[in-house]
Amino acid sequence: MSSPSFLTLPSRPDKPRESGLTHVLDKGLTLTQIEEWYATCGDYVDIVKLGWGTSYVTRNLREKVALYQSLDVPVVLGGTLLEVAISQGKVDEYRRWVTDLGLTHVEVSDGIVEMAQDDKLELIRSLATEFTVLSEVGSKDSTAVVAPYRWVQAIMAELEAGSWKVITEARESGTAGIFRPDGEVRQGLVDELVHYFEHSRLLFEAPQKAQQVWFIKQFGVNVNLGNIPPDEVIALETLRLGLRADTLGIVNEVAEA
Amino acid sequence: MSSPSFLTLPSRPDKPRESGLTHVLDKGLTLTQIEEWYATCGDYVDIVKLGWGTSYVTRNLREKVALYQSLDVPVVLGGTLLEVAISQGKVDEYRRWVTDLGLTHVEVSDGIVEMAQDDKLELIRSLATEFTVLSEVGSKDSTAVVAPYRWVQAIMAELEAGSWKVITEARESGTAGIFRPDGEVRQGLVDELVHYFEHSRLLFEAPQKAQQVWFIKQFGVNVNLGNIPPDEVIALETLRLGLRADTLGIVNEVAEA
Amino acid sequence: MSSPSFLTLPSRPDKPRESGLTHVLDKGLTLTQIEEWYATCGDYVDIVKLGWGTSYVTRNLREKVALYQSLDVPVVLGGTLLEVAISQGKVDEYRRWVTDLGLTHVEVSDGIVEMAQDDKLELIRSLATEFTVLSEVGSKDSTAVVAPYRWVQAIMAELEAGSWKVITEARESGTAGIFRPDGEVRQGLVDELVHYFEHSRLLFEAPQKAQQVWFIKQFGVNVNLGNIPPDEVIALETLRLGLRADTLGIVNEVAEA
Repeated sequence: MSSPSFLTLPSRPDKPRESGLTHVLDKGLTLTQIEEWYATCGDYVDIVKLGWGTSYVTRNLREKVALYQSLDVPVVLGGTLLEVAISQGKVDEYRRWVTDLGLTHVEVSDGIVEMAQDDKLELIRSLATEFTVLSEVGSKDSTAVVAPYRWVQAIMAELEAGSWKVITEARESGTAGIFRPDGEVRQGLVDELVHYFEHSRLLFEAPQKAQQVWFIKQFGVNVNLGNIPPDEVIALETLRLGLRADTLGIVNEVAEA
Repeated sequence: MSSPSFLTLPSRPDKPRESGLTHVLDKGLTLTQIEEWYATCGDYVDIVKLGWGTSYVTRNLREKVALYQSLDVPVVLGGTLLEVAISQGKVDEYRRWVTDLGLTHVEVSDGIVEMAQDDKLELIRSLATEFTVLSEVGSKDSTAVVAPYRWVQAIMAELEAGSWKVITEARESGTAGIFRPDGEVRQGLVDELVHYFEHSRLLFEAPQKAQQVWFIKQFGVNVNLGNIPPDEVIALETLRLGLRADTLGIVNEVAEA
Repeated sequence: MSSPSFLTLPSRPDKPRESGLTHVLDKGLTLTQIEEWYATCGDYVDIVKLGWGTSYVTRNLREKVALYQSLDVPVVLGGTLLEVAISQGKVDEYRRWVTDLGLTHVEVSDGIVEMAQDDKLELIRSLATEFTVLSEVGSKDSTAVVAPYRWVQAIMAELEAGSWKVITEARESGTAGIFRPDGEVRQGLVDELVHYFEHSRLLFEAPQKAQQVWFIKQFGVNVNLGNIPPDEVIALETLRLGLRADTLGIVNEVAEA
């Protein structure tokens, strides 16, 4: 069915796109859920992450991955699983498994396991020869505060090493990394990041609605947002398009322009 | 299958009913979810709202609406979408679209867009010739506090203009309108409202469990409650019937009566 | 499909097991949801509770129960329903209904209705001749604080009366019984309990992630945890196995051992 078109709405780039990405956190969707959810809102889903180590314990993982592939939705495994593999000296095994699953994207993070920066960059460089790499910056420890200049330095180095996008950490809860433990945006930090980088090179984890609203108001409807719960994808799209109270101003401006 | 019947429970009117309504917020259910959810708890669902502008971006909207219609569940679009249409001067187009979708109910709100009261009443009057109108009173701005007498005046005027029920605003979160930002009921306001109106003319948005409990204790099992998340419909029905700790007293009173 | 095996993970006993139980709260799952959810994570589900009185108002209850039985997942009805039956003098009718449904497990609680201890123990004794009994200790009233020695005495008596496991109350929200109203563990109480009982005789309700992490860190990966939301079962399994940031240390210790 064709969409209705009587309203004037902000424009969104077509898939596959470089900005305006919606990156979804799947922590246990079933096959029918995926299939039907895609029918409802597939146009708005750019990439799906199987959170942390969930892929490793999902019994019907191959069917899930195959289903996503048939829908042209790239799948990426959560960075934590690679961190576990690193901590056990099993990076090669991890890589073979990901290849065997037919995945085209990988996430490289150091949110838990301590890793020398050079090692992380080397890993990104190596994986980037074969995969589209999303690397992640920021600690999962909600009490860790890292100076903005160190975020900038890390992001710059990871982009140079071959990361497609750099993800700014927030966790599933939206209470770490670029957010304070109560979910509030570390605004000074984010300002610093977008001073140095086009926001389209970054992917901001922003699971909470108030966080999504903040980023859309700040950087426009085509900001990259991540860790979106599957059942919030349509709601996020309405926020982007000004079809919800919180961002209604945006659509008005477009209509008046 | 027939229900078990060994317990003595409060009685609930049959569908379609005028009181005891459960009004559900659908912000992205899929077809199988709807179908099976209905098999589980359809008797308890009186009307489904496709929240704010979600209908406009739902790809398989016509299938969804057709499915709800086949289940005899009226569908209404969130008031925000009409507000967007108003702000863009597209009310006629909106109306044609709703008619074309085969909907029998509409929601008229002014939670975001400023609207003169006369304009709102005129819109209700006009839509009421063709649709069952639910109009909504209260701001989506959680910091806006409106004096009770103004709520009373607005509700009275909207009922006279032809509204079937007047919805009292709470948002998906239950933190605006008749609730304080922390979700607590504005009790003085609600007391004032039910002093002037039978509670069956009102539909109280009450997404949080503690809010539902409060209204059931205050106005009985057949109070109209709205913005109920789909997966809380069975839980709400157990609250109404005294089958959950929070309202167990009600069923005891009935049994002893 | 066989699971991947390149990582060294803590070992988990096979089903049916006596420790490491994951007890899930179903408050309205549909048939397809159950079927597909089981395909995703069924190995990790030990028992499903149909919360409080939801079974009584679920229209397709017999189909649900039959489906769980076909998957070899024991079903138990929430204790509140039995409490309602007790308060209405309908225990025999309740028992016939449970038998007629083909259930093998029952829950006996006194979280709301006042019951003399002897009456509760007599009920456990009587039900234990026919069913596997899970009895529950602790009030649903979040303000009720009961001295640890009284918990110990009650649990001891209920195990002697024939309870398979004793559940420590937390509610769906994780804010009563063994938790403070803000969800924090009543640590002194839990310490006292495990001083007197092997933790495998207890089943700790722990719906919140932080609570699950606490118990896993305290008592190991094979602690019994209850009231787990269905869509958190895979996430919980990753916590048990050290595949999520919060418990990554556990898996490291195992790998180094």
